[in-house]
Amino acid sequence: MARKAAIIGGGVIGGGWAARFLLNGWDVAVFDPDPEAPRKVGEVLANARAALPALSDGPMPAEGTLSFAGTITEAVEGADYIQESVSERLDLKHRVFAQIQQVASDTPIGSSTSGFKPSELQQNAANPAVIFVAHPFNPVYLLPLAEVVPSAASDPALIERVKETLREIGMFPLHVRKEIDAHIADRFLEAVWREALWLVKDGVATTEEIDEAIRMGFGLRWGQMGLFETYRVAGGEAGMKHFMAQFGPCLQWPWTKLTDVPEFTDELVDLIAGQSDAQSGAYTIRELERIRDQNLIGFLRVLKERNWGAGKVLLEHDARRRAAAFAPVVGEGPMETARMTVLPGWIDYNGHMTESRYLFAASETSDAFLRHIGADIAYVGTGFSYYTAETHIMHTGEAKLGDALTGTVQVLAADEKRLHIFIRILKDGQPVATLEQMLLHVDMGRGKTCAAPQTILDRLLPIAQAHAALPRPEAAGRHVGQRNA
Amino acid sequence: MARKAAIIGGGVIGGGWAARFLLNGWDVAVFDPDPEAPRKVGEVLANARAALPALSDGPMPAEGTLSFAGTITEAVEGADYIQESVSERLDLKHRVFAQIQQVASDTPIGSSTSGFKPSELQQNAANPAVIFVAHPFNPVYLLPLAEVVPSAASDPALIERVKETLREIGMFPLHVRKEIDAHIADRFLEAVWREALWLVKDGVATTEEIDEAIRMGFGLRWGQMGLFETYRVAGGEAGMKHFMAQFGPCLQWPWTKLTDVPEFTDELVDLIAGQSDAQSGAYTIRELERIRDQNLIGFLRVLKERNWGAGKVLLEHDARRRAAAFAPVVGEGPMETARMTVLPGWIDYNGHMTESRYLFAASETSDAFLRHIGADIAYVGTGFSYYTAETHIMHTGEAKLGDALTGTVQVLAADEKRLHIFIRILKDGQPVATLEQMLLHVDMGRGKTCAAPQTILDRLLPIAQAHAALPRPEAAGRHVGQRNA
Repeated sequence: MARKAAIIGGGVIGGGWAARFLLNGWDVAVFDPDPEAPRKVGEVLANARAALPALSDGPMPAEGTLSFAGTITEAVEGADYIQESVSERLDLKHRVFAQIQQVASDTPIGSSTSGFKPSELQQNAANPAVIFVAHPFNPVYLLPLAEVVPSAASDPALIERVKETLREIGMFPLHVRKEIDAHIADRFLEAVWREALWLVKDGVATTEEIDEAIRMGFGLRWGQMGLFETYRVAGGEAGMKHFMAQFGPCLQWPWTKLTDVPEFTDELVDLIAGQSDAQSGAYTIRELERIRDQNLIGFLRVLKERNWGAGKVLLEHDARRRAAAFAPVVGEGPMETARMTVLPGWIDYNGHMTESRYLFAASETSDAFLRHIGADIAYVGTGFSYYTAETHIMHTGEAKLGDALTGTVQVLAADEKRLHIFIRILKDGQPVATLEQMLLHVDMGRGKTCAAPQTILDRLLPIAQAHAALPRPEAAGRHVGQRNA
Repeated sequence: MARKAAIIGGGVIGGGWAARFLLNGWDVAVFDPDPEAPRKVGEVLANARAALPALSDGPMPAEGTLSFAGTITEAVEGADYIQESVSERLDLKHRVFAQIQQVASDTPIGSSTSGFKPSELQQNAANPAVIFVAHPFNPVYLLPLAEVVPSAASDPALIERVKETLREIGMFPLHVRKEIDAHIADRFLEAVWREALWLVKDGVATTEEIDEAIRMGFGLRWGQMGLFETYRVAGGEAGMKHFMAQFGPCLQWPWTKLTDVPEFTDELVDLIAGQSDAQSGAYTIRELERIRDQNLIGFLRVLKERNWGAGKVLLEHDARRRAAAFAPVVGEGPMETARMTVLPGWIDYNGHMTESRYLFAASETSDAFLRHIGADIAYVGTGFSYYTAETHIMHTGEAKLGDALTGTVQVLAADEKRLHIFIRILKDGQPVATLEQMLLHVDMGRGKTCAAPQTILDRLLPIAQAHAALPRPEAAGRHVGQRNA
């Protein structure tokens, strides 16, 4: 049975939490007295549905059920996890916790607060031990970071279970060991925000110039290494001490003096809002959200390819899911070895899946088949591999963004060296492309074909024998331009 | 004749400038009294050669000539542009400028200073009007940002020419209109650095925890939008004023108080250096540089695909180069339509170009051919296009990282609707793959084939006629697995 998360507060942050839980297979009950909450949560969920699956390289679990509760009591009933994302008012948060704990005194309650310390949240609570900070970052459905901050009154075992829950929904729980106002990340955001307000107020830079100064330079660095690792590299062979000796003294320079806060006048607000309109007003917020999400998907997939930073979190999340997921099964027909979703990066200017991505989908399909017969990455590491000698592709349909595709393999013929297969890329059971391929078993060191080992043949040849009974595909044995019979 | 840049100071930053100029076809003379300078510049250049070409989708210009000068006078002789990247000591910079201007008083002199204002740099100079700040970000060969800061004494026309020079070497010159200590970006870096030192000193977070807090969350946001555009989106439909009303008051909260600077003691340096070793010590600096560069290439290519932020700069740089670059020419043999370099993202776990990238290279080749006959993106916009119906690929060689590939098209047959072509992907003149393709002219709205318009046929048919005289490729008309004749 699906587990249940209760989301108290259905704004952008609460909606993001709801989407993350739902798309990871949890049921979600939202409580928010705002009559607009279902619309707001629905919009965030629509964005998340278009974005989060693009990060996964395995099948997604079935989406959980979303409901809106009329009371906090109803929302938290039977919940395995509760996340509070109401306005940043301590008295309000205290009232919410008190209502929750009247009926669910042992359930973990994470707070999305960006400023309050857990010990402040826990004041006067019936059961302070289960209340902690779980601070996410917008868009919650894409960015992995959640700062988990316990206090001395927290239950350490519960905190460990909560971190595991967050990993299960694809997040990176950063355990903040010492409670402090604004935790860690927001202290940096606040420091930059202060400096930015001064620069705009003093007429040094516009909002657009500040944004360019960030995204054309250090912003790119920070998305993949943070502050210290970046500086470690900058310090060169001499290392971190050298870097600090070189740049430490800058702290004494005059440009560190503007550390007080500019007065937050109407004029300053108007100045910034006006500049922001000039900079970004050509796009609606919905358009900017989509642009942001597509950029973040791209960044996250780059990091995933490299098993680095946030990409490592995604790979670990895939691996965690794979245990319970799809594995190829030898049945009576062609073997289904891959399930894929057409991702934004697979689409050309016609709005269709690009030609080369059909071959990519076929590679996913044949790679899974090769893994199944034992020719996996570990095997390649021993110096042997199957190489594709030739391929014939027939395009018989069109795939579009978000389409679910499956890949099947039919073995046409196989011997010690040769593997002749027919791949179908299917959408709703109908082929959008078929590929006939000849693969050769190769000794990579000698650059020559050679016989595959018995362990592989023992798995391959029975499949070939079983598939020999299948009807031969019409498209097999064709050359390009051949007329249909 | 190639233009010449003089680079004064050959450390990581000077080396990065040298690499950017060289790889964009400029000759470069470096002056640095350090006997290690040639080695240091050489290492940066090796990194840049492995990285910068991966951002370009057109041919790179021939690399310029690198020389090391024995004196400043020799380095700046005949230079069109001078970049100073010596240590951050104002008296040293003044001496360098004085020596330069004894022999080259009119040449633009950009300073890489991260802290000094241009009016300070210009003090006592023979010709202050040509001295300005051109502040880059490490790695200089990948990150586009250069803060260009003139003073009131600067020559505005010269500053405009300098910005154009920086664009020519692929950079984004951010014109800082009001001089201020540390310009714009480093004020933010300094604000974050101050906050980070406190967090480490107070034992709230380690260097690794701080880096995770950045790269798992807001760092990813900042690589593609900056601060204000990110917050504009967070504010939702209600916009920037709403966001500020919601979060502005946070500035008054207690977590804005730590704005003074921690004392820079040996203990603090040791604490940070030790934590950094624990975090990143498993990698050498060279390894971290490569990881960083590959991540940045990935991010930059994502943004390039989306024509957004730094990716827009790259696309504009490509377009700027294309004018002077390669265009297909109808000659006697197959038509060469594409030149490509095998990029890091094209490589599989065997170290070879992935199968689907051969089809990608073929698409680049056939797309260029289609553009040549008038079936370009504008034509697709009218609702018609050539679709690939089938493809036969023969793999006849292997491409590896950095290989230069060319793509040629031979028209086997063409009529009103059908275009039957043979594509060769060549490395050093020898095919690594050949592709036989059947393309059909399609009315996309009706989803049916139809005759191509006369304007396209007028360009296509003469090529088909000329190519009819070429020998028919042996691989044409083959089906998969067919034995060689």
